[in-house]
Amino acid sequence: MSTRVGFIGLGLMGRPMSLNLLKAGFPVTVWNRTRARTEPLAAAGATVAASPREAAERSDVAITIVSDPPALDSVLGGAEGALAGLKRGGLLIDSSTVSPALARRVAADCAQRGIEFLDAPVTGGTWGAEKGELVFMIGGKAEILERARPVFEAMGKRLFHLGENGAGQTVKLAMNLILALEVQALCEALALVAGSGVPGQKLVEVMQASMARAPVLDVKAPLVLEHKFAPSFPLRLMHKDMGLALELGNQTGVSLPAAAAAREVYNFVLGSAKEDLDYAAIAKYWQRH
Amino acid sequence: MSTRVGFIGLGLMGRPMSLNLLKAGFPVTVWNRTRARTEPLAAAGATVAASPREAAERSDVAITIVSDPPALDSVLGGAEGALAGLKRGGLLIDSSTVSPALARRVAADCAQRGIEFLDAPVTGGTWGAEKGELVFMIGGKAEILERARPVFEAMGKRLFHLGENGAGQTVKLAMNLILALEVQALCEALALVAGSGVPGQKLVEVMQASMARAPVLDVKAPLVLEHKFAPSFPLRLMHKDMGLALELGNQTGVSLPAAAAAREVYNFVLGSAKEDLDYAAIAKYWQRH
Amino acid sequence: MSTRVGFIGLGLMGRPMSLNLLKAGFPVTVWNRTRARTEPLAAAGATVAASPREAAERSDVAITIVSDPPALDSVLGGAEGALAGLKRGGLLIDSSTVSPALARRVAADCAQRGIEFLDAPVTGGTWGAEKGELVFMIGGKAEILERARPVFEAMGKRLFHLGENGAGQTVKLAMNLILALEVQALCEALALVAGSGVPGQKLVEVMQASMARAPVLDVKAPLVLEHKFAPSFPLRLMHKDMGLALELGNQTGVSLPAAAAAREVYNFVLGSAKEDLDYAAIAKYWQRH
Amino acid sequence: MSTRVGFIGLGLMGRPMSLNLLKAGFPVTVWNRTRARTEPLAAAGATVAASPREAAERSDVAITIVSDPPALDSVLGGAEGALAGLKRGGLLIDSSTVSPALARRVAADCAQRGIEFLDAPVTGGTWGAEKGELVFMIGGKAEILERARPVFEAMGKRLFHLGENGAGQTVKLAMNLILALEVQALCEALALVAGSGVPGQKLVEVMQASMARAPVLDVKAPLVLEHKFAPSFPLRLMHKDMGLALELGNQTGVSLPAAAAAREVYNFVLGSAKEDLDYAAIAKYWQRH
Repeated sequence: MSTRVGFIGLGLMGRPMSLNLLKAGFPVTVWNRTRARTEPLAAAGATVAASPREAAERSDVAITIVSDPPALDSVLGGAEGALAGLKRGGLLIDSSTVSPALARRVAADCAQRGIEFLDAPVTGGTWGAEKGELVFMIGGKAEILERARPVFEAMGKRLFHLGENGAGQTVKLAMNLILALEVQALCEALALVAGSGVPGQKLVEVMQASMARAPVLDVKAPLVLEHKFAPSFPLRLMHKDMGLALELGNQTGVSLPAAAAAREVYNFVLGSAKEDLDYAAIAKYWQRH
Repeated sequence: MSTRVGFIGLGLMGRPMSLNLLKAGFPVTVWNRTRARTEPLAAAGATVAASPREAAERSDVAITIVSDPPALDSVLGGAEGALAGLKRGGLLIDSSTVSPALARRVAADCAQRGIEFLDAPVTGGTWGAEKGELVFMIGGKAEILERARPVFEAMGKRLFHLGENGAGQTVKLAMNLILALEVQALCEALALVAGSGVPGQKLVEVMQASMARAPVLDVKAPLVLEHKFAPSFPLRLMHKDMGLALELGNQTGVSLPAAAAAREVYNFVLGSAKEDLDYAAIAKYWQRH
Repeated sequence: MSTRVGFIGLGLMGRPMSLNLLKAGFPVTVWNRTRARTEPLAAAGATVAASPREAAERSDVAITIVSDPPALDSVLGGAEGALAGLKRGGLLIDSSTVSPALARRVAADCAQRGIEFLDAPVTGGTWGAEKGELVFMIGGKAEILERARPVFEAMGKRLFHLGENGAGQTVKLAMNLILALEVQALCEALALVAGSGVPGQKLVEVMQASMARAPVLDVKAPLVLEHKFAPSFPLRLMHKDMGLALELGNQTGVSLPAAAAAREVYNFVLGSAKEDLDYAAIAKYWQRH
Repeated sequence: MSTRVGFIGLGLMGRPMSLNLLKAGFPVTVWNRTRARTEPLAAAGATVAASPREAAERSDVAITIVSDPPALDSVLGGAEGALAGLKRGGLLIDSSTVSPALARRVAADCAQRGIEFLDAPVTGGTWGAEKGELVFMIGGKAEILERARPVFEAMGKRLFHLGENGAGQTVKLAMNLILALEVQALCEALALVAGSGVPGQKLVEVMQASMARAPVLDVKAPLVLEHKFAPSFPLRLMHKDMGLALELGNQTGVSLPAAAAAREVYNFVLGSAKEDLDYAAIAKYWQRH
């Protein structure tokens, strides 16, 4: 009999991920804070639960993917939370990006209830989520990962087992630090050439022929050149993740000077943004007022 | 009759570049401050000049590639400098990395003597120089670039015409800013995961499966993981180039916060280095004392 | 009849502050996590309580001064916490340094119980605490401050009413940001002259004759020159406060580039410190390994 | 017979300094690039020279105070420069702010001509210059300083002998680094409290009652609060001096993270400034666009 999956959080990432689970034949029960977002999933065959608890009760594996630590606390805890619904021996997978410390606390809460837990944040963006080509960064027991492999493989192409609970989140924060600094580097370099009268497009062409080229820069460079910042990966989330990375660095005595500098640029732009923007919008830092 | 080339500066880059010119059939006259370095070139068929001036006198095109602005001044100026040797209508190509302002000053000196000038720094490293796969970033007149195209194509695979004199250097400094920040990002991220007890190798595997992957990170990650920093692109030169990029930014009113932060890390490590290191050695910043 | 004061937290600051209350004639009941620290207070006439709740029950005004947000939560909340002990119409004064958001949350908890609240962190160091010359930065209702004025004046010479609850903590974090950057500035400048072979003492003499002189620099300069870092204001607390200031800046969209850079230096030194040090110990960042 | 003084450079600082020399009874010959500026000095009894050379020829001691290294080169070198006018055994005092390396080069040029040299930059601002209360930071031979003491004391109240040639400039750059970071700290702190709805004036009052108070902050705080930035010490000169400090740090392997971060804020504001502003105008960084 097929593993029953509860899916909690139907945002930009959760929606395509849960659709891919349905396509792969898993029975899926969904829950979302804003109920309207469950409709496309119901149309595709998902059951709609009235609470995170009910989604978990109907499932062998519950997956959460929400925007930040308070949102995770609210879907897991309390009388209507997912932890109250999972049976002993059940499995919770959290694909949100939160701190390793919070992942370890959730793991401890699960252990007290006899529930298994994997922290399994993702990289690959909405495009990867839609294509089922996400990369999962997983912390927890290797045998539990193996048990859940078919569920993961319905959503992603690469599973990395990185260590104990918290290790998935640690690597996720490090990955987003790299992505954020790569985009910062591109934006600084584009501002530098523009300030000297050289068109940014020229720099992008050279970059793409060089050792510096990176898929994320291929994707973000056109946004910066055209000043179009419809959110793919929202600035506010990248800003939050840099905050988590710096918090982790400061708790562990790891100095992160360039990340700290870049985060204040993210902060500068986010603080004056009037709408939701992609994180490539840090390019606005260099627009003259 | 084939264009005669004078080649001044036989360092890590200049040696393979001049060898490729010889292989392509150009008559080449070489000069180097340390004469011993001319021997492999002489063995390969090059004429050895006694001064930059003589190398230029024997040539239609003189190419310079030296380590910094004072070195460039010393091979170009004075009674024995290359400018004194080039004939009216000759061409000087400078592939050193210097400031755009210096490139424009050299262009003005050349113009006074009826000499054409292209600033044409390169990217691709010693590997690209050996394979003849360098990328040239070129500032100057387009028609002069076309005249010199066969010479360039003996050394590189891609020629980018970026604007007037100085534009080549501007883009080169921007490119090195990106490379330096990419390596800084990798090193910060590796320190972050190591500080939390996750092996760096795990992060590298995830990175290589992600949108963040970049050829420069594939090359530098193993050096950082193994703490082996034999210089391919020396730390002292990347530190110098970041200084030139920041100087340009400060002259043009372009604020570069992450580059400024990273440069102080480069400075920190260079300041306590006891030997010549690759720029990936900034990882030493996170080694506990 | 004299206002009865409950004093919770007898650390470097709390001990002299509560002694000054006793000297001014207030009946004082003290509590401290480590009971041994209550002995000098008992000897001076204080009653020793068995819990924060008991200290509050015996008092009209309860004052807390502990090291960080979790410590504050632990002395305020729960069955044995101070909030359970204060009567309706009583007053809680918190002189810890925490976030403005936490101060507002404590204020809301107090309001629900009919308790008045002032956030009232201090500046002036242990010296100011001993002399009764602390400066209080106070958020909350002006009339409540007036009611508590005699209590404050037993401990400090200056009371600043800065706005509603949270305003005291906001100004405290801003003050510590200034102090931390002033000491960072001095240490960078001392490293700069030492690196050029000029004795640091010379710079200190010039500084003290200049517009840059500041009492905090007069106090810290000798520590840096003599490399003696016995903690007066501990590095770990200043590092924590910079984290709170940066968190506040990032929540309100206020970019703090120099504070962010300095905090990573504080982090660098704290991360490799083997003992408790004064924050002037950031000078260790420049000691060659 | 009184020492004859040649005074070259009649800007914001040079004018009151040369007037004080006249008041003290020294025969003074002045020169300035813009001749109109010599008029008030002529009215006060100075002789006006047609070139730096002539000012030096008529003098035992020549004093230069100009805005940057190229300006210094132009008044010292060449056929009409001051070096050509000073006699063997004469003394050159440079009170400009330049790099220690340039000070040592000027010292070497002087030595070749048998001229003594002191680098003697000042701190104290236009106010100190007018009152004759400047602080001189002096590099060079102690006995030469003693010979020139009466000249210095006509302009300043404190003379610090700091070491060999270059040491004056080294300490001056370090002093300006401290001043620039103190003002940066104040501006970050003011932006932080304003972002939380607390009036900046409140923070200034607390600061002035605290260990953080400094004369420079007393002077600059009102400018920031009132957004009035008429230049006393111009932003462009402080930005230049921070560049010189960072250049020195990067040449000597001394990492200056907060100075580097602050300089990019100075750069940000200077780059978009449309008029000459005081360096307190970095507060514009936090004005929302």
